[in-house]
Amino acid sequence: MALRTYEQYLQSLRDMRPNIYKFDELIEDVVAHPATRNTVVGHGQSYKALGDPAEREIMTTTSHLNGEPISRYLSIIRSSDDMIANCRLKRHMFHLSGTCTGGRCAGWTAINAMFATTFEMDAKLDTDYHDRFLAWLADAQSRDITISGALTDPKGDRTRPPSMQDDPDMNLRIVERRDDGIVVRGAKVMICGIAAANEIFVLPGSSYKETDRDYAVSFVIPRDIDNLTIVETRRPSDNRETEEGFDIPVTEGGITQAYLFFEDVFVPRERVFMAGQHEFTGTAVKYFIAPYRAAIGGCVAGQGDIKIGAAVLAARTNGLSSKVFSDKITQMCINNETTFGLGIAASVMGSQHPSGAWICDMLLSNVNKVHVATMPYETSRLAQEITGGIGETGCIPSYKDYTSEKYGHLVRKYLKARSSAESRTRAARLVEWTTIGPGVPGCMHGGGSPDGARMFVRAFSDLDKKVEMARRLAGIDEEISEPAGKKK
Amino acid sequence: MALRTYEQYLQSLRDMRPNIYKFDELIEDVVAHPATRNTVVGHGQSYKALGDPAEREIMTTTSHLNGEPISRYLSIIRSSDDMIANCRLKRHMFHLSGTCTGGRCAGWTAINAMFATTFEMDAKLDTDYHDRFLAWLADAQSRDITISGALTDPKGDRTRPPSMQDDPDMNLRIVERRDDGIVVRGAKVMICGIAAANEIFVLPGSSYKETDRDYAVSFVIPRDIDNLTIVETRRPSDNRETEEGFDIPVTEGGITQAYLFFEDVFVPRERVFMAGQHEFTGTAVKYFIAPYRAAIGGCVAGQGDIKIGAAVLAARTNGLSSKVFSDKITQMCINNETTFGLGIAASVMGSQHPSGAWICDMLLSNVNKVHVATMPYETSRLAQEITGGIGETGCIPSYKDYTSEKYGHLVRKYLKARSSAESRTRAARLVEWTTIGPGVPGCMHGGGSPDGARMFVRAFSDLDKKVEMARRLAGIDEEISEPAGKKK
Amino acid sequence: MALRTYEQYLQSLRDMRPNIYKFDELIEDVVAHPATRNTVVGHGQSYKALGDPAEREIMTTTSHLNGEPISRYLSIIRSSDDMIANCRLKRHMFHLSGTCTGGRCAGWTAINAMFATTFEMDAKLDTDYHDRFLAWLADAQSRDITISGALTDPKGDRTRPPSMQDDPDMNLRIVERRDDGIVVRGAKVMICGIAAANEIFVLPGSSYKETDRDYAVSFVIPRDIDNLTIVETRRPSDNRETEEGFDIPVTEGGITQAYLFFEDVFVPRERVFMAGQHEFTGTAVKYFIAPYRAAIGGCVAGQGDIKIGAAVLAARTNGLSSKVFSDKITQMCINNETTFGLGIAASVMGSQHPSGAWICDMLLSNVNKVHVATMPYETSRLAQEITGGIGETGCIPSYKDYTSEKYGHLVRKYLKARSSAESRTRAARLVEWTTIGPGVPGCMHGGGSPDGARMFVRAFSDLDKKVEMARRLAGIDEEISEPAGKKK
Amino acid sequence: MALRTYEQYLQSLRDMRPNIYKFDELIEDVVAHPATRNTVVGHGQSYKALGDPAEREIMTTTSHLNGEPISRYLSIIRSSDDMIANCRLKRHMFHLSGTCTGGRCAGWTAINAMFATTFEMDAKLDTDYHDRFLAWLADAQSRDITISGALTDPKGDRTRPPSMQDDPDMNLRIVERRDDGIVVRGAKVMICGIAAANEIFVLPGSSYKETDRDYAVSFVIPRDIDNLTIVETRRPSDNRETEEGFDIPVTEGGITQAYLFFEDVFVPRERVFMAGQHEFTGTAVKYFIAPYRAAIGGCVAGQGDIKIGAAVLAARTNGLSSKVFSDKITQMCINNETTFGLGIAASVMGSQHPSGAWICDMLLSNVNKVHVATMPYETSRLAQEITGGIGETGCIPSYKDYTSEKYGHLVRKYLKARSSAESRTRAARLVEWTTIGPGVPGCMHGGGSPDGARMFVRAFSDLDKKVEMARRLAGIDEEISEPAGKKK
Repeated sequence: MALRTYEQYLQSLRDMRPNIYKFDELIEDVVAHPATRNTVVGHGQSYKALGDPAEREIMTTTSHLNGEPISRYLSIIRSSDDMIANCRLKRHMFHLSGTCTGGRCAGWTAINAMFATTFEMDAKLDTDYHDRFLAWLADAQSRDITISGALTDPKGDRTRPPSMQDDPDMNLRIVERRDDGIVVRGAKVMICGIAAANEIFVLPGSSYKETDRDYAVSFVIPRDIDNLTIVETRRPSDNRETEEGFDIPVTEGGITQAYLFFEDVFVPRERVFMAGQHEFTGTAVKYFIAPYRAAIGGCVAGQGDIKIGAAVLAARTNGLSSKVFSDKITQMCINNETTFGLGIAASVMGSQHPSGAWICDMLLSNVNKVHVATMPYETSRLAQEITGGIGETGCIPSYKDYTSEKYGHLVRKYLKARSSAESRTRAARLVEWTTIGPGVPGCMHGGGSPDGARMFVRAFSDLDKKVEMARRLAGIDEEISEPAGKKK
Repeated sequence: MALRTYEQYLQSLRDMRPNIYKFDELIEDVVAHPATRNTVVGHGQSYKALGDPAEREIMTTTSHLNGEPISRYLSIIRSSDDMIANCRLKRHMFHLSGTCTGGRCAGWTAINAMFATTFEMDAKLDTDYHDRFLAWLADAQSRDITISGALTDPKGDRTRPPSMQDDPDMNLRIVERRDDGIVVRGAKVMICGIAAANEIFVLPGSSYKETDRDYAVSFVIPRDIDNLTIVETRRPSDNRETEEGFDIPVTEGGITQAYLFFEDVFVPRERVFMAGQHEFTGTAVKYFIAPYRAAIGGCVAGQGDIKIGAAVLAARTNGLSSKVFSDKITQMCINNETTFGLGIAASVMGSQHPSGAWICDMLLSNVNKVHVATMPYETSRLAQEITGGIGETGCIPSYKDYTSEKYGHLVRKYLKARSSAESRTRAARLVEWTTIGPGVPGCMHGGGSPDGARMFVRAFSDLDKKVEMARRLAGIDEEISEPAGKKK
Repeated sequence: MALRTYEQYLQSLRDMRPNIYKFDELIEDVVAHPATRNTVVGHGQSYKALGDPAEREIMTTTSHLNGEPISRYLSIIRSSDDMIANCRLKRHMFHLSGTCTGGRCAGWTAINAMFATTFEMDAKLDTDYHDRFLAWLADAQSRDITISGALTDPKGDRTRPPSMQDDPDMNLRIVERRDDGIVVRGAKVMICGIAAANEIFVLPGSSYKETDRDYAVSFVIPRDIDNLTIVETRRPSDNRETEEGFDIPVTEGGITQAYLFFEDVFVPRERVFMAGQHEFTGTAVKYFIAPYRAAIGGCVAGQGDIKIGAAVLAARTNGLSSKVFSDKITQMCINNETTFGLGIAASVMGSQHPSGAWICDMLLSNVNKVHVATMPYETSRLAQEITGGIGETGCIPSYKDYTSEKYGHLVRKYLKARSSAESRTRAARLVEWTTIGPGVPGCMHGGGSPDGARMFVRAFSDLDKKVEMARRLAGIDEEISEPAGKKK
Repeated sequence: MALRTYEQYLQSLRDMRPNIYKFDELIEDVVAHPATRNTVVGHGQSYKALGDPAEREIMTTTSHLNGEPISRYLSIIRSSDDMIANCRLKRHMFHLSGTCTGGRCAGWTAINAMFATTFEMDAKLDTDYHDRFLAWLADAQSRDITISGALTDPKGDRTRPPSMQDDPDMNLRIVERRDDGIVVRGAKVMICGIAAANEIFVLPGSSYKETDRDYAVSFVIPRDIDNLTIVETRRPSDNRETEEGFDIPVTEGGITQAYLFFEDVFVPRERVFMAGQHEFTGTAVKYFIAPYRAAIGGCVAGQGDIKIGAAVLAARTNGLSSKVFSDKITQMCINNETTFGLGIAASVMGSQHPSGAWICDMLLSNVNKVHVATMPYETSRLAQEITGGIGETGCIPSYKDYTSEKYGHLVRKYLKARSSAESRTRAARLVEWTTIGPGVPGCMHGGGSPDGARMFVRAFSDLDKKVEMARRLAGIDEEISEPAGKKK
């Protein structure tokens, strides 16, 4: 099959067992239900776009397994060019959907992390994980499925490792090992795009020691597997999704973030890619982090482009030229291109893994993560500043009021400015949606915390080399070692 | 009567004619209706607190008209100490309510602006506005009412003055002058705390020229006056207000922002404080801006205190010590104290007006406004960073899911960390509420835009004096005048 | 005598024993020697200005000891108004001299710190330090002397307390206690304005424990006391001071920073204000820090004013209007007024000490210190940006080249722009002088490090109160205590 | 010859006619004279390093003209890999020399700019500039010379074009056109590394219109050509270069910036690459800017590495562990990698020019320029903060005092901390040198102003495309055009 149509994608979602809930209700059809419809449409852009040759160029590549055309989201990144294409694709997907389509990208990253990790595992442990993985991958490519990635465990008390928690389930773990597979219990939380996914790729949430080996587990499962219960979180202003009108102005995309509860889920052997090899959990995490934190620069740049466009649009509906806000727009552009550019740089400065995978530069990826956790906030603030009070908190009557028979004419009369009331409202609502509304993605902590990234920056910066360079330049012969402790 | 009880305050609201709508429904009782209840409770803190002597000290002062104890919100600020008390009160009200109680403070500011402005008008024009104003004020103090302030006009096309708009109603205007009063038409938009107010004090929204003299109008009216229709705007996640549970964790306060439609409202003569004196519109705006932009530093500091507390609370529920985030907390404190401190400075560096009013320093007030439009955004970002993914976008299942009979036990099991699931959820929801939820006040544009403030900063900074000081120090004898134009 | 004339001040300096060195040479006359002349002129502005009534208002006040007119620099700060006058005076002195006149202000601060500290010591220890201090102060006021303040010890290995250093002299200490006084040994380093001072007021450099009681010492001495050797440090581009021309364009002020070596200096009893009372070293430091870190906001604002003026002057000499740089100028003004304003706020929010002294608010003072360590750097960068390449590193031929007989005409021909070559050069050199030259004061570490200030901010911010407020608002009943340690 | 030895390089400089002045003195031997020695050594690192294979890999490449090994500084950048190698080389040169070796890099950039520009000129105008250029380049490569680049004109009144200046010489111009060449008059100012250069490559300083065609001129000349007079500017603390000791601690590198006066210099035809083709001045400038503003990210990162090393070194000499300053060091690393990484990104996102040249991405290059004008200032501030007061303004007695027979023992006694007095002093002086001393390069305005870069960012950001994306997402059908003017 190779590449599915949009309609085939939607049908594949309809065909699955309903196991997603929100507001204490089972969502029978994720394609139609207002709580999940927008995210399905957003993810679906990656299928819909294939009719256009320019889009197809961005969205697809060739399988290194068999030379078939496949979605990039199912490809192994084998060169800096592949990785640059990743950054571009993510920026583009934000342009199309206005927000995060994490149900494809985290899965993609997970695939790549385990491609390299299983290769290393097999090389060192003489296991057959890599072959299992490749068999599954070839099949996944041929089915052109959408795959979410799931890392984050509930974690419980942050200061204690998994096996020292009061409740051992606070991190996802193997509770039974069978010849034909494993049984897992626990949860993965805040997982993006589950409702739009066909399968879920699970990775360990952290680096574990030997005592925590039951938590060293990676596998892939159908989203509707038995004993898996999924609850969608509520997000800012999510009730508006159930309403008519343009209080949520965007119908081309949307985010969902879910809690996944594994109540003794059985995973067949051929879908298990790690089961107890704690010494490779750090490896898997590292290979996840590197491309994720590079490419996310494209994500926030893509939404940044929308924020700029929306703010200028809003200003123009008010009668104000973009020239009035020239310095703010320039700063927003600088923020966008900085995160996008650093993603490109992390891609280019990467290196080839023995498996054939391309591993992004850890220093630049993590530098980018820190920017991703700060710059979009400034961009949002500037978008709100340009838009004015109606953008800052979306300070506009609701669509119900806008169309009220009693006083809707007054609302519309006074919302009109240089442009129509509807255009002005929609533009302001888009600024609200991207800066303080349901379109805000969880980019700060998605893929790990900024403080974690800062630790990597510090670790990969080779401080001693810098000190040596300075010592040489300063003409100092004396050895100047690091003092033992902090000042008391 | 002088000082009302909380119950008297609530009763006064219940006694008014219902003329506020939201979601195309008339709100029969603002005290009970979920859309307005929280803001009423929030404003009501200023009445409720009077039983406590320490609170009473913060909340009340003595009327300079008659020596009676009155709410500060109805007082004339006559000294820097009064103004400092204003800054403190606003910080304190955010502590109590968690958010903005703008329905008292904008009214207070409007009162003070027109106290000085009417004094100047009478001195120059031989009118009797000041006496009218004082008569009304004495009565308002004796009734201990809550008064909203309303400045912002819809404005239409931003590049054209009121009288040049296609629709002359785009700024509030006098359509009829009668012996016993005036009739006004138009709207005021994004007005805070209307639902909690007994009266509304209207000010011109900008400085006008003679051709726009019909727009030079100031008056005070009961909120339920005939021909006034009020529509509450929708704010982030406002639907949650209608739900059970703690998805909105705060019940002690809340914001509303309303659109006010004046369909030929008659205002009796004794409640009119400006009617056509365009040359005093700039004066009124200036006297509004000066204290408003000083004291708002206390507002955002007060909410910043809550953000710090909420983030540390959330971290602790996760098992993390505040020491882990020490530098972030320090930065948040610096942001808070900077805006609070600059408000104090603007208060102190003010000057006495011939009317007896105390006028804050325009330079420092406007410097503060710029900080108010930026620093709280950094504080919010840091709060989200400390809290983790569940704070960033409130990424938690809804209360309905939390209590689901089917799977609520799973939600609760996995939300538990060092503290209980409920405490952890409530703390994270409070971070969401103050940083990306319904508790976010409109401080960036409230009281005017940051770019407007920057223009004041530039205008009040006496650039030529600085240039002269530099010229003297540099030993330059030559005259160095300002070149005519910008570089082409 | 009360108030000296400028000439009397200069004569008093000439009358002292030469004990200051630079470049291995003894400076016979600090008034005439190029290494110290500018700083003497700068400090002398405080005497010279007294002829002008407006200046006199800024510079002088009334002694609370005897009602005589005295220099503010010798006064006890007894009210918030006194403290505001301090902030204003410091800003003004930067306007007059272009840079720091720390030889008066640190001494002033030291006087105030020991006024309150000796009061507390006597109250608790039944000593007579306060009376000694008052006797000396009355005499100092009557002589109208200039007094430097000296706190910073060499400190040796930063991780060890004074008594644990390999060399016990690394902090200034009492080596002999006699009936008629004490003998001290050690050094004070990086002391500002010594060359312009008549006396030196010494304070302990830190808070000490009992084992370090010999280091708990405070006293005042003539600058030219026996066994005191003073070496001036070299500062950026200081050689230019010995040259003719305008490569240093400023002749109205200048900084010196000295190392003071005490080789068993005898201090008579009546000039000793602390000798072994280690438990009051922290007190002295705190009472020094509070006003110092408040008022230094005026200092950097004052120099910031000059930077703005110099940058605009340079732009105008190039033919560019200040309008081209409007946003940069506004940001520079915001920086200036922020540090000035927070100093005012720290002044106002202070409290009365039982001794009658006015103690600034520690939280706001330390917040200000952090800004003082960052904002002036941005202001400098903006000044350089406005000025262009010739301001950035002072990239202009020397005065010798400017006046060269061989090619000086070429230098002058091509330095001319809209204004004369000399004006353009002087303006650019002033930017260089204030941003990367000898006019840069040591404001970042002067009066303690920014990290020290951050620790105070954290300590004085009452985190637990904020957490409690958040807990109440979030509706959390559970106790949420601080977890024990950092995450491992 | 292809690659010269360090000694051959020095000899080539000694062989030239002395025509460089400083302090009104002719510098007879730039290799030996203290004013130029350090910059010669710094530039010489690029020759000296060739003995080491790893260095050679960084420093050299293959000529695309003839396949010979050549210095990268003389190569045409023909691929993104070449451009990445450029960024790396520049970072590395800062590591070796501690500062800017602009006498090679600006020349390199100029070569590349005119390679592409002459190609376009010939294609459009049927001239033979490209062949002339290639002939000269092949010869320059074979001689392995060092070439400075010179763009900046004195410019006179900034608001007027060259031909409208009072003095037509304010921009370098052709005063005579001869069959065998041209005669030029005027000046180029603030030119880096002239003293270390064999030849000077001149480019037009801006984009010119037809009326300014005499200013459209590009050529290359020996540094010691007749009628060229060079005056070195004075830089911060440059006098120290003439002194013994370690007040300037660095002997491996140094900067010079010169004013070049062309008093009717004759340039032979074969060395002229533009003479009157004003329509290509913008082209030349653009092709200069693109790689320059990309690679300068490597420059400031390289010096940033030294600042980090120096600050940590200084802290360690004080006894403080780098852990104390972990967040500051991380921030400094982030700044470094951001500018370096964006240079890499601008390199990679470039495109192939028909001539075979590789043209960097203009948007990312200019984004980087803005960061280059800001981030190093923060890095400097943090370095000073870590180092303490002795780093902030280099507040240490001079070397003469350090070695004084009278009191040098005291200076040394009290400068000692955990490390020796000399190591501590050298480390602090290195921080001073790189942050407020002669090692500070002119990166903010070198290669054009940040405001110029901001204009490019704005121009290359395709605002309308962003607006269209937003309009589609917001569901707006109405056309929303840009309003005509700014708000009045």
